[in-house]
Amino acid sequence: MVCVGVVDTTFARVDMAKHAIEVLRKRVPALKVKRYTVPGIKDIAVAAKRLLDEGCEAVLALGWVGPTQTDKYSYLAYSIALQNLQITYGKHIIDVTVHEDEAEDPKKLKEVAVERAKEHALNLALLLTRGPEALTPLAGTGQRQGWPDAGPL
Amino acid sequence: MVCVGVVDTTFARVDMAKHAIEVLRKRVPALKVKRYTVPGIKDIAVAAKRLLDEGCEAVLALGWVGPTQTDKYSYLAYSIALQNLQITYGKHIIDVTVHEDEAEDPKKLKEVAVERAKEHALNLALLLTRGPEALTPLAGTGQRQGWPDAGPL
Amino acid sequence: MVCVGVVDTTFARVDMAKHAIEVLRKRVPALKVKRYTVPGIKDIAVAAKRLLDEGCEAVLALGWVGPTQTDKYSYLAYSIALQNLQITYGKHIIDVTVHEDEAEDPKKLKEVAVERAKEHALNLALLLTRGPEALTPLAGTGQRQGWPDAGPL
Amino acid sequence: MVCVGVVDTTFARVDMAKHAIEVLRKRVPALKVKRYTVPGIKDIAVAAKRLLDEGCEAVLALGWVGPTQTDKYSYLAYSIALQNLQITYGKHIIDVTVHEDEAEDPKKLKEVAVERAKEHALNLALLLTRGPEALTPLAGTGQRQGWPDAGPL
Amino acid sequence: MVCVGVVDTTFARVDMAKHAIEVLRKRVPALKVKRYTVPGIKDIAVAAKRLLDEGCEAVLALGWVGPTQTDKYSYLAYSIALQNLQITYGKHIIDVTVHEDEAEDPKKLKEVAVERAKEHALNLALLLTRGPEALTPLAGTGQRQGWPDAGPL
Repeated sequence: MVCVGVVDTTFARVDMAKHAIEVLRKRVPALKVKRYTVPGIKDIAVAAKRLLDEGCEAVLALGWVGPTQTDKYSYLAYSIALQNLQITYGKHIIDVTVHEDEAEDPKKLKEVAVERAKEHALNLALLLTRGPEALTPLAGTGQRQGWPDAGPL
Repeated sequence: MVCVGVVDTTFARVDMAKHAIEVLRKRVPALKVKRYTVPGIKDIAVAAKRLLDEGCEAVLALGWVGPTQTDKYSYLAYSIALQNLQITYGKHIIDVTVHEDEAEDPKKLKEVAVERAKEHALNLALLLTRGPEALTPLAGTGQRQGWPDAGPL
Repeated sequence: MVCVGVVDTTFARVDMAKHAIEVLRKRVPALKVKRYTVPGIKDIAVAAKRLLDEGCEAVLALGWVGPTQTDKYSYLAYSIALQNLQITYGKHIIDVTVHEDEAEDPKKLKEVAVERAKEHALNLALLLTRGPEALTPLAGTGQRQGWPDAGPL
Repeated sequence: MVCVGVVDTTFARVDMAKHAIEVLRKRVPALKVKRYTVPGIKDIAVAAKRLLDEGCEAVLALGWVGPTQTDKYSYLAYSIALQNLQITYGKHIIDVTVHEDEAEDPKKLKEVAVERAKEHALNLALLLTRGPEALTPLAGTGQRQGWPDAGPL
Repeated sequence: MVCVGVVDTTFARVDMAKHAIEVLRKRVPALKVKRYTVPGIKDIAVAAKRLLDEGCEAVLALGWVGPTQTDKYSYLAYSIALQNLQITYGKHIIDVTVHEDEAEDPKKLKEVAVERAKEHALNLALLLTRGPEALTPLAGTGQRQGWPDAGPL
């Protein structure tokens, strides 16, 4: 039985985990989901590490980043940690970050968050079940999660 | 008996540790607190590491960051180190950072610092005593520490 | 038989892998190419690590970076991870990044992407087949990939 | 006999080591000081590492940072490395950095450099001889090194 | 016989290696130089690592950085990697970086590059042959490589 970790935060303003888990369950047969909720993005990496240590095959990291420059630096430190962890374990940790300055309209921002969580849950499901070339048919096609695809040039 | 480390600095302008320790003791039965005071944020990571090596289950890191761009870079290096340490040990180090440019009014800034320390001490106590889903009921609800909650979208 | 990994993304707007693989095959006798497609640059490092673990001698990392400041930070975290991985394995991972703000004209941007992929595929082929001094005749000559060479001063 | 490393640079415009060593000798009985001089801040981490490998209990790192944005990035890389090293060894490396843009008046800048070196030498001496709570009486009191203390809020 | 690695790039616009190697050979008796040329700065760290693995005592890293903000981030990632590598191996990797925005006049920029390479080659030679206090007489004297010394305050 495949185990996938889902890490989210109380800082986030949308319950992205709910939507992501729905997609994961639909796509991965007999999936076991382990959820871990932490205060903010700087606590996600250690939660992900613990879930990997407990046997999860991959983690979905549902980060939420505030609008200030300090928040951006926190995001940078967080991104560095997640990649560090991935190359230590050789496991995917899909980073589903929403930045509060992506949209001014709260309704739009919520929509972006929900869609991004769902689309990246699908990405993860595909990588887990079909392997390294699962996404190859979409390579170079300008996929976006939460916003309309940019499309190929 | 659970041991929690509390690292603070002489650079900070508020004694956040006092408030954090009060909350921790109230919440975690038979808690052992080990305090370590260092000059500034760049010295916190090694203090946290030593406390983890001495058997602490987690650390509360009470950082204070000045207002200049150089201070922001120091904050970034510090954040990278704390996450690096967390993913090495698999232990939570809750980062309770106050940025001196968060509020112009000294009284307000002090209030933010005290409240943040207390709220993150509570977060840590919950994670330690109730585990990965302790905070899940608050996931996606826009919690803030020291400032009013942003709330869910 | 030499194995080279090629990692690309669905975020990219040009299928750079196709062009890079063509050049690699032409240049490296009996080359085995392993392709791995991921959502975006923050997923490339772990894919590269897996390919190295499967025996690849080197990896071509075909990143694509959006135009915002947040994208730049993601690029930075990605660059740190790739170099971290290289110095852990002692294997080249040639970073073929295209930044969406490099050219305003989509046609020009596509051309830059294709040429960069091909030129770096050639660089990698030379390093793999002829070793550390393969590129020495070009040292200090201001080579650019995708844009005209700057030339020596 | 306790050994402390002192690393300084030829890039610095003030001989901070002289002042720091004086304070260290006065405060730590039978201290052995090992000095290592390198060109600039990017060479300090490896010198510190070598001194720790030779048995030093701690290192005082006397960095000097130029005024440009590039210099700030070098400072950031340096800060990351020093903290990385500290959490690998579990030893304090007190970072006594002077930024050339801290003061316009050369005389003032020199004074800042000398005082900072002395005050951090004292911090290190206290941590070495009296342990984790040596500085606790000053926690939250807004200590500054080289500039007047900010004081508690 | 001492071995020193010299890593340079095809991106650089000046053949700095030639000048650096000349100085190294003059200063270090029976020196063995191993040269490794890579496309750009993001490829230098792995080349340096390979040369250290082959037995080199130290490496001279001849980087060249473009003028854009993206180039600065690449420089930052590169600096982090070089220091990471140095503290893993305990060997000096002297970072001789030229930033294309240091001088507008191409002739001046070339002169800076050549002089910097030569002066840092000398620094490395002194550290290798005379050890940690070789540069101590110049500590705090404001040495610059390629530009006039700033001098002591």
